Amino acid sequence: MGHNMNTFLTKGAKNKKVEVMGLNKPKVVILGAGYGGMMTTVRLQKLIGSNDAEVILVNQHNYHYQSAWLHEPAAGTLHHDQTRILIDDVIDKNKVNLVIDTVTEIKKDEKKVVLENGREIDYDILVIGLGFEPATFGIPGLKEYAFGIVNVNAVREIRQHIELMFAKYNNVQEPKEDLLTFVVGGAGFSGVEFLGEFVNRVPELCKEYDVPREKVRILSVEGSPTIMPGFDKELVDYATNFFERHNVELHTGTLLKECTPEGIKMAKGDDIIEVKAKTVIWTGGVQGNSLVGEAGFEVNRGRCPVRKDLRAPGHDDVFIVGDCALIMNEETGRPYPPTAQAAIQESYVLARNIKKLLDGQTDLEEFVYQPKGTVASLGEKDGIGIIGNKKVFGGQAAFWKKVIDNRYLFLLGGMKLVLKKGKLNMF
Amino acid sequence: MGHNMNTFLTKGAKNKKVEVMGLNKPKVVILGAGYGGMMTTVRLQKLIGSNDAEVILVNQHNYHYQSAWLHEPAAGTLHHDQTRILIDDVIDKNKVNLVIDTVTEIKKDEKKVVLENGREIDYDILVIGLGFEPATFGIPGLKEYAFGIVNVNAVREIRQHIELMFAKYNNVQEPKEDLLTFVVGGAGFSGVEFLGEFVNRVPELCKEYDVPREKVRILSVEGSPTIMPGFDKELVDYATNFFERHNVELHTGTLLKECTPEGIKMAKGDDIIEVKAKTVIWTGGVQGNSLVGEAGFEVNRGRCPVRKDLRAPGHDDVFIVGDCALIMNEETGRPYPPTAQAAIQESYVLARNIKKLLDGQTDLEEFVYQPKGTVASLGEKDGIGIIGNKKVFGGQAAFWKKVIDNRYLFLLGGMKLVLKKGKLNMF
Repeated sequence: MGHNMNTFLTKGAKNKKVEVMGLNKPKVVILGAGYGGMMTTVRLQKLIGSNDAEVILVNQHNYHYQSAWLHEPAAGTLHHDQTRILIDDVIDKNKVNLVIDTVTEIKKDEKKVVLENGREIDYDILVIGLGFEPATFGIPGLKEYAFGIVNVNAVREIRQHIELMFAKYNNVQEPKEDLLTFVVGGAGFSGVEFLGEFVNRVPELCKEYDVPREKVRILSVEGSPTIMPGFDKELVDYATNFFERHNVELHTGTLLKECTPEGIKMAKGDDIIEVKAKTVIWTGGVQGNSLVGEAGFEVNRGRCPVRKDLRAPGHDDVFIVGDCALIMNEETGRPYPPTAQAAIQESYVLARNIKKLLDGQTDLEEFVYQPKGTVASLGEKDGIGIIGNKKVFGGQAAFWKKVIDNRYLFLLGGMKLVLKKGKLNMF
Repeated sequence: MGHNMNTFLTKGAKNKKVEVMGLNKPKVVILGAGYGGMMTTVRLQKLIGSNDAEVILVNQHNYHYQSAWLHEPAAGTLHHDQTRILIDDVIDKNKVNLVIDTVTEIKKDEKKVVLENGREIDYDILVIGLGFEPATFGIPGLKEYAFGIVNVNAVREIRQHIELMFAKYNNVQEPKEDLLTFVVGGAGFSGVEFLGEFVNRVPELCKEYDVPREKVRILSVEGSPTIMPGFDKELVDYATNFFERHNVELHTGTLLKECTPEGIKMAKGDDIIEVKAKTVIWTGGVQGNSLVGEAGFEVNRGRCPVRKDLRAPGHDDVFIVGDCALIMNEETGRPYPPTAQAAIQESYVLARNIKKLLDGQTDLEEFVYQPKGTVASLGEKDGIGIIGNKKVFGGQAAFWKKVIDNRYLFLLGGMKLVLKKGKLNMF
């Protein structure tokens, strides 16, 4: 353990008697306060006493955010503060130490984690919940010129970039159609939810900046033959109709080939179409955090195929949760998609398994994913989805989406958090 | 008169019996709906009957804006809609036709005005109230890379550009100090008023984007030995102290030498200092609209030295009002600065003189400027100024500034307009 880290922990320990007693307590280090890491921390602090372990949560920021809500602040329909909460507000500081720093390396053979400032933290039990990265599939220019709906800092920039494009429009000479041309790459879940918010935001922006709505061009570019590939046909038809009514150009069966400073090139069959656009948002896919593979764990697109007890193969002291964990759907033989729902379910089992290890037990619990359904919002008042086995549309879907979002806040911080950060405009 | 223009006027006339009767009415054409043009129109419509003249007001937009308020929406402390009003709300449509177009040429020998779309309007009496342009004094890069607080479209872009710089800050890697470095060129009236608003806005932006205040650098660059050159020393000292308390770097005796895509170069004595800054706002000077000189009128920095009755020398059918008119202070031998106050006072005399011409009288009234005082705001709650002969500071100055702003709305549109667009948070 480096000198800096010692200083940091000593500082933290000054006000806490238990730390002095706990020099030999087992050390549980949780990397990342996304859905998986945050919920694991909150569940674990309920299961253990403050003398059972030293729990350290490492996160880049002093806040947790709900990444599944980020399409809303990106479009500007919800303030970003509504999508994040101070970690201090949900952790029990007698049991958990929060370290605000960025993980740069996991040294699994030395049982250490390296942080950005050169500090190292050693662990007895490690939980990797480092989340997703955009998968760019090697498309040239995507990293340089496209935005990703990836975190609070990114969506604030997207929101403000979009607004600046509207603000510039009446202040510059022709040609300027690129200012009001918005390309969303990928029409899966995130792409569709962003578009759903954005079509509601555009009329507000037009009014604010004296821009006629017909000057605004919104393109969805999706390689599959329909939007929301893999979803129920009736739901896809509903969403397709929604976007057509809102003047979104749906370019399905179309591949995004390149991003340039001027816009994009897309391929429809043999045709290459160039579109001038100052705003390209890529939602075409995600992969697990690259640190997992770099640490030497087995990965498939950044996701480690964990054992049934959520531990990494060959490593009894390392759990992986959320978007970095690959869990197979044994019925279909394909992995479950990385969702908040899966991460939350995993965290319950994971916390109980850590408790077992701390108690010296070896019969860890097996995780079985139980899909409860999926709802995609189409703006605040519309949506599509499946709840249990039932299809839901329109206002009903929007209602269920808010129930899902509020339920998570309840699991994380109780009714108090729902009232503070919840979506209470449900009816 | 071109075909398009006929169509336009015929369309307008369809609902107005008086137009049909007025084919031979004298035509009064007013160019620009700034302080001078707008107030002249409103005064004139009170003095004449609908059969006395055909009055045409030509303006780029269907709204009038108070350019003296623009530092507020530029900084983001006041919404731009509060600084503009629909022209239709203050003109008497039985007496005035509004043409929304841009003037491209004044053909004074043919008594015609050319508009952007090739239309022409002929006139019997012309009022030129085309406002100001930034004077860039040949500083390289200023036109390309610096913003000007010049109109509603411009200040919306400034506001959003500034906000995007804050939004980007936590989303990009070092070096990035240029994102939060703001240079204001010129510390005269406009520069100081913008800075006064901006120092109030910065803490809000820091909070919104998780930026520590000490990362934000604000520079004022002024060639004179003090800010607000020409103002009373005690007032200047007060403002200087205000900015020092608010961590604005006052670079007086410093010339802005060049703007580049990276920032600025400024000269302090023999030293050339480079500052990396993504935001440069130029408030260093204004001149009259260049169309006036291009039309062949005598001009000095774009301003025509008008006769005492506010007509252009040698042109009995052309009045010039506001920032395009140069009026000498005979006591000092120097021209009065182009202010809203002067333009408003001119419009009263100008409207009466038009009425006299329409009535066939030739003894036009002479304009005498009566300075009532000057107040510069330093944000919403502070300021400096002179009212009559009395110096005012702080809250008292801020109060008077709001009185002045509201008084203008009252003159333009009565109490109804004050209640709708006024600064009612006066105490």
